[in-house]
Amino acid sequence: MANTDSVKVRVFSLNCWGIRYLSKHCRQRYAMIGDMLCKEEHDIVLLQEVWSEKDYLFLKKKLACSHPHSHYFKSGVIGSGLAIFSKHRIHDTFLYRYSLNGYPYMVHHGDWFGGKAIGMAILSIGSLTANVYVTHLHAEYCREKDSYLPHRVVQAWELQQFVRHTSAGADVVILGGDLNMHPQDLGNRLLRSYTGLRDSFLETDEFDGCENGLTLIGDNPFISKKELVPFEKGIRIDYILFKGSTKAEIFCDSMSTTKGSVPDHPFPYSDHEALTAELRLESHTPAETGRDKQSKDSDSAAEKVAELVDIVTEARTEVKVGLHCAENMRYTATRTGAMGLALLFLELVIAAVPWLALGAEQPFPRTSFYLLAMLCFVILLTTSLLYIFYTMELKSLQGTEDQMRLAVGSLQEKLRGFPLAQPHNAQRKSPEGREPSAFDPEE
Amino acid sequence: MANTDSVKVRVFSLNCWGIRYLSKHCRQRYAMIGDMLCKEEHDIVLLQEVWSEKDYLFLKKKLACSHPHSHYFKSGVIGSGLAIFSKHRIHDTFLYRYSLNGYPYMVHHGDWFGGKAIGMAILSIGSLTANVYVTHLHAEYCREKDSYLPHRVVQAWELQQFVRHTSAGADVVILGGDLNMHPQDLGNRLLRSYTGLRDSFLETDEFDGCENGLTLIGDNPFISKKELVPFEKGIRIDYILFKGSTKAEIFCDSMSTTKGSVPDHPFPYSDHEALTAELRLESHTPAETGRDKQSKDSDSAAEKVAELVDIVTEARTEVKVGLHCAENMRYTATRTGAMGLALLFLELVIAAVPWLALGAEQPFPRTSFYLLAMLCFVILLTTSLLYIFYTMELKSLQGTEDQMRLAVGSLQEKLRGFPLAQPHNAQRKSPEGREPSAFDPEE
Repeated sequence: MANTDSVKVRVFSLNCWGIRYLSKHCRQRYAMIGDMLCKEEHDIVLLQEVWSEKDYLFLKKKLACSHPHSHYFKSGVIGSGLAIFSKHRIHDTFLYRYSLNGYPYMVHHGDWFGGKAIGMAILSIGSLTANVYVTHLHAEYCREKDSYLPHRVVQAWELQQFVRHTSAGADVVILGGDLNMHPQDLGNRLLRSYTGLRDSFLETDEFDGCENGLTLIGDNPFISKKELVPFEKGIRIDYILFKGSTKAEIFCDSMSTTKGSVPDHPFPYSDHEALTAELRLESHTPAETGRDKQSKDSDSAAEKVAELVDIVTEARTEVKVGLHCAENMRYTATRTGAMGLALLFLELVIAAVPWLALGAEQPFPRTSFYLLAMLCFVILLTTSLLYIFYTMELKSLQGTEDQMRLAVGSLQEKLRGFPLAQPHNAQRKSPEGREPSAFDPEE
Repeated sequence: MANTDSVKVRVFSLNCWGIRYLSKHCRQRYAMIGDMLCKEEHDIVLLQEVWSEKDYLFLKKKLACSHPHSHYFKSGVIGSGLAIFSKHRIHDTFLYRYSLNGYPYMVHHGDWFGGKAIGMAILSIGSLTANVYVTHLHAEYCREKDSYLPHRVVQAWELQQFVRHTSAGADVVILGGDLNMHPQDLGNRLLRSYTGLRDSFLETDEFDGCENGLTLIGDNPFISKKELVPFEKGIRIDYILFKGSTKAEIFCDSMSTTKGSVPDHPFPYSDHEALTAELRLESHTPAETGRDKQSKDSDSAAEKVAELVDIVTEARTEVKVGLHCAENMRYTATRTGAMGLALLFLELVIAAVPWLALGAEQPFPRTSFYLLAMLCFVILLTTSLLYIFYTMELKSLQGTEDQMRLAVGSLQEKLRGFPLAQPHNAQRKSPEGREPSAFDPEE
């Protein structure tokens, strides 16, 4: 056996925009997607927004020959919308639900009902163990005044934690999905810096697709250009990321996206563009490249830690903004609830007065009385539910802030361990089977 | 440096029963717990049911010298109640919230509000990386008719998944907490078989404590013996579990529990007994014991897989029972909601009749009308919320069932790979840094 084995892996990712009866041409588009996947025979297919299990089962049936292994991740009220199809055997799956995901009363945005999550599947590709992740983060509805930003930052934080902590045993890591973040957005930097995941669009040797790798484009007939302002041409929010380990290196040979239309079809697969990355996995005997990579990377390790400290600090600020908002909202709910309670109490007093002054034969305004009582009751119930919800939101935000504070402390401690004069001391201890560029503060 | 380094680690676990104003002598007990921990100086202290952050901060202040590192895990409405104090630096923490955790309307049980979770902390103990987990599972209120059993089985399933997937990079794994399961309960077998975690009570060389290691005993003054029937003496539901890796072996030298009272104090620390385990970690150079252990374990690997298939199948049955229950509950909620809607419709028709027959001067029964409308509204709101809740429960149960089915398939595939005649082929590929006895279906 040669020292280096090379395996090609084609990865596909698409946000299917699959809201039955609401998304345009939903059934026809699933049929198109099924036909294309059946023909293209990608190794790994990562789908988002497959909101209906029926559509998943339709694809599963259609891809039974080309992709015998699949998994649909269930979560929330509607589902996580995440599905994976694979030519390689799926040995194990695991789901992590984001602790924050919008608000249940923002029904028209609907993110809360989706139960957004990270789906993980462990695959064997040849002799390598691949951890494959698929995820979909909370949408950004208004970039200028993005009230969901703290939620998305917490999701990005949990995503990097989950990937980092679950991938220590993996030889290669592949993550695909709709991150709903621009390439340089805080959450994206957090994810890439902490995990060491690399962006296939930036790493590829060949690229064929939309300008700048855009995945939500103005030329797509399902997109209203107005919504994209000030990014008329489009935005890049869907990604295929990857990283190797000391056991295997991973390269992106080529990458492509659809360009807003599909030849011979009247409309595209979805409102998002589909991504395809051709990855090449090269497995080594552990001793071979580990040391080369280590010495190469140790030079920049201190810089990376310093950068990470900045990013986590920025993320912490964003989470604090969210904390402040949630506290305000909870305070408003409490105050409204207290007003409802006071009103109810006032009503009871008014009712008790004629009851006490039995003789007075004034007509009691029953209708208004019951209407008002009903109003008080609804106010009390709603504010109680909101109070519970905001308390849970606060706990999640506080918990994340605590973790981030700990992380900054740990990183700063690590930074002190890098004497500027001796950069080669930097990575004294590199755990086996881990990519040294992937930054683990637990070391 | 010698080939084998030995480090002693003392681990403490206690369910503090810390419901402010409700748990008896709560403040005094925290003061006692603080004094004892300060004096005993355990390496790792794992606490559950620290419901109030104020109590955590009280302990943190008290233990600032003996345990400079600590973390409090926030989740749910009240909190997860989980806290960790450590003499060794905590580098990183991560929290996994169980997807199922009782029902919000079972307010008197309160588990739902607690947001039960698994807290993970990554510690450096000497040159070793230790993954330390603390958790608290849903309580069992009635063993004969345990309506929460499916929830607890799902929690045990998620616990084993979380430990298994996050510990691949760890040299040693320590888990402590109130599992609310007897030693041979399904969830416990699932956890131990899948992860390879060993029970310190069963593994210890020396034991000093309650008979059979009981941790919830009839002799504890805070316990009503009636509640323990038919286990008058008590039950064992708190555990300290551990496992090593190919890099380090772990042994339990001695273990002790409190015995329902504390010398020189009028009452014990809690309604649960406190556990202390003295563990010994022996680190090796990777090559040394890996191979010995591998050949020793491969003989019984096939048996272990077969056992695991049985356990997962049993767990799947339990989850299916839960699924059936949740479906019934959702059906009941739907039916009740439909009745509320019909009633509201009927009311509107009745109201419309006198309005249409304008001339008729019959007195309209306003009071009953508004009362009934209020009732309809409350029914509709409540059943809608219940419908959403049960749908989320169903999704979680279905998701777990899917994962279990996949796991059984994967295990059976593995079982076919063990030819009875060649038991030594069994573990052809053993990933580095992992304990071969810890059973990983992703291999």
